[in-house]
Amino acid sequence: MAEPLSARRGGPLPPPPGRVWLVGAGPGDPELLTVRADRLIRHAGIVVHDRLVSPAVLGLVPARARRIDVGKQPDHHPVPQDEINALLIELAREGHDIVRLKGGDPFVFGRGGEELAALRAAGIAVDVVPGITAAAGAAASLGVPLTHRGHATGVRFVTGHVRAGAPLALDWAGLADPDTTLVVYMGLAALPVISAQLIAHGMPPDLPALVVASATMAAETCVSATLRDVPGVVAEAGLAAPALLVIGRVVDLRQPAAEMAAGLAAFPGLMRVGGHA
Amino acid sequence: MAEPLSARRGGPLPPPPGRVWLVGAGPGDPELLTVRADRLIRHAGIVVHDRLVSPAVLGLVPARARRIDVGKQPDHHPVPQDEINALLIELAREGHDIVRLKGGDPFVFGRGGEELAALRAAGIAVDVVPGITAAAGAAASLGVPLTHRGHATGVRFVTGHVRAGAPLALDWAGLADPDTTLVVYMGLAALPVISAQLIAHGMPPDLPALVVASATMAAETCVSATLRDVPGVVAEAGLAAPALLVIGRVVDLRQPAAEMAAGLAAFPGLMRVGGHA
Repeated sequence: MAEPLSARRGGPLPPPPGRVWLVGAGPGDPELLTVRADRLIRHAGIVVHDRLVSPAVLGLVPARARRIDVGKQPDHHPVPQDEINALLIELAREGHDIVRLKGGDPFVFGRGGEELAALRAAGIAVDVVPGITAAAGAAASLGVPLTHRGHATGVRFVTGHVRAGAPLALDWAGLADPDTTLVVYMGLAALPVISAQLIAHGMPPDLPALVVASATMAAETCVSATLRDVPGVVAEAGLAAPALLVIGRVVDLRQPAAEMAAGLAAFPGLMRVGGHA
Repeated sequence: MAEPLSARRGGPLPPPPGRVWLVGAGPGDPELLTVRADRLIRHAGIVVHDRLVSPAVLGLVPARARRIDVGKQPDHHPVPQDEINALLIELAREGHDIVRLKGGDPFVFGRGGEELAALRAAGIAVDVVPGITAAAGAAASLGVPLTHRGHATGVRFVTGHVRAGAPLALDWAGLADPDTTLVVYMGLAALPVISAQLIAHGMPPDLPALVVASATMAAETCVSATLRDVPGVVAEAGLAAPALLVIGRVVDLRQPAAEMAAGLAAFPGLMRVGGHA
């Protein structure tokens, strides 16, 4: 309902609306934030974040700042997207500048586009700060290139997440391409289906695959196996979500840190590992 | 040939080998470096870089550091990959720590995997620092999400670069999927072929597409058109490589800055655009 003219004339002017930064929090390690994200977080007055933002990154938020977790409600369900949009608009209209912090990159399975559209429709100024997406963070940490001559001519990101009860409706025939590295975000629960469907659509069963949890962080855990065997191996290892699934010949290029250290043992510089100029 | 034992016994010990950091320089704006990349660059003794690293990022290299450009030789051809590998190994064996700086992310069309493999085979310790890949940088800068409900269920990166004289051998049928955002790196020269082949393989000719050059930098230039018309529009605009091609329904979500400012004109906070708490 429109506000009566008299109230608008007589009352105080509303505050100028705040600005919203949609900020990628990266894969977890705070050193993998962008310089801009790091600065915005350290100077934030209000931070609205979800459950994929690591505790280490949240540790950079100033103690005086208001921190709003939209990843989990008291009933353990995440706050619905339209309520998050409404919250951001309300806070901005009250005049607050807001850092909206999202795991990874806001525009790769982050629903950042929906928040951007809702905020702009409401006349709120928005900036988007990209983040290192989980695939790039995991690739660097594991030493697995996403593209590589003779192994992968390109890379593809899909999500294995579905609403409760819905089937995973991916374009299996299109995805079953051994020349493209396939990265599945949030694919842990659907891993048996993903493995079976890709093989049924022509992907070689012995194509290498890996699943990594907590990539780039101290708790990083990675298991690898063939596409056929990876669901069993992951179940046995007890990996917990969120985890990233990488399928493709590039997985064979991975050289675990232990093997690498053994290779270095012949060199007098071994003990310098970790230091730099 | 193995070194004679006498030389090993009698001569001075070789210096401990240096360490190599394969570092993503991001899309251009130095604020989009990761915190770790920023620190490594500012403290580097030797930086080996190619032509996709922006002048603004190179401006962070200390004046005392040795800077080696492998992007261009005197004859204007880039240094061959095996020579770059040999250079990195030689410098590391001399005991130097090296920041190997690559545009975007080292593992997305950066040939970082080849350098990693060569260095590790030579017993050199290597760390990989991910970077904001061009697609993520451009997406954030333009306000175009790479995935978006109802517009794109996933995103795919391929390269349009070919060796001189070779045809562009992409899996056109697999790429012609209007539900996946398609990003083509280094696709400017092949743009007419890409447009024609995708349409010939079933991609809707009126699917929106954009080409952006110098994304995230002051010189950022973007043109958009339908997939059918984009080669002509880009040629008319005279965009120069390197440029990024984005094809998919998400392109329609882009809201140019000018329109956005007009939408904000009704709000008293307009003049605060650019400031933050």
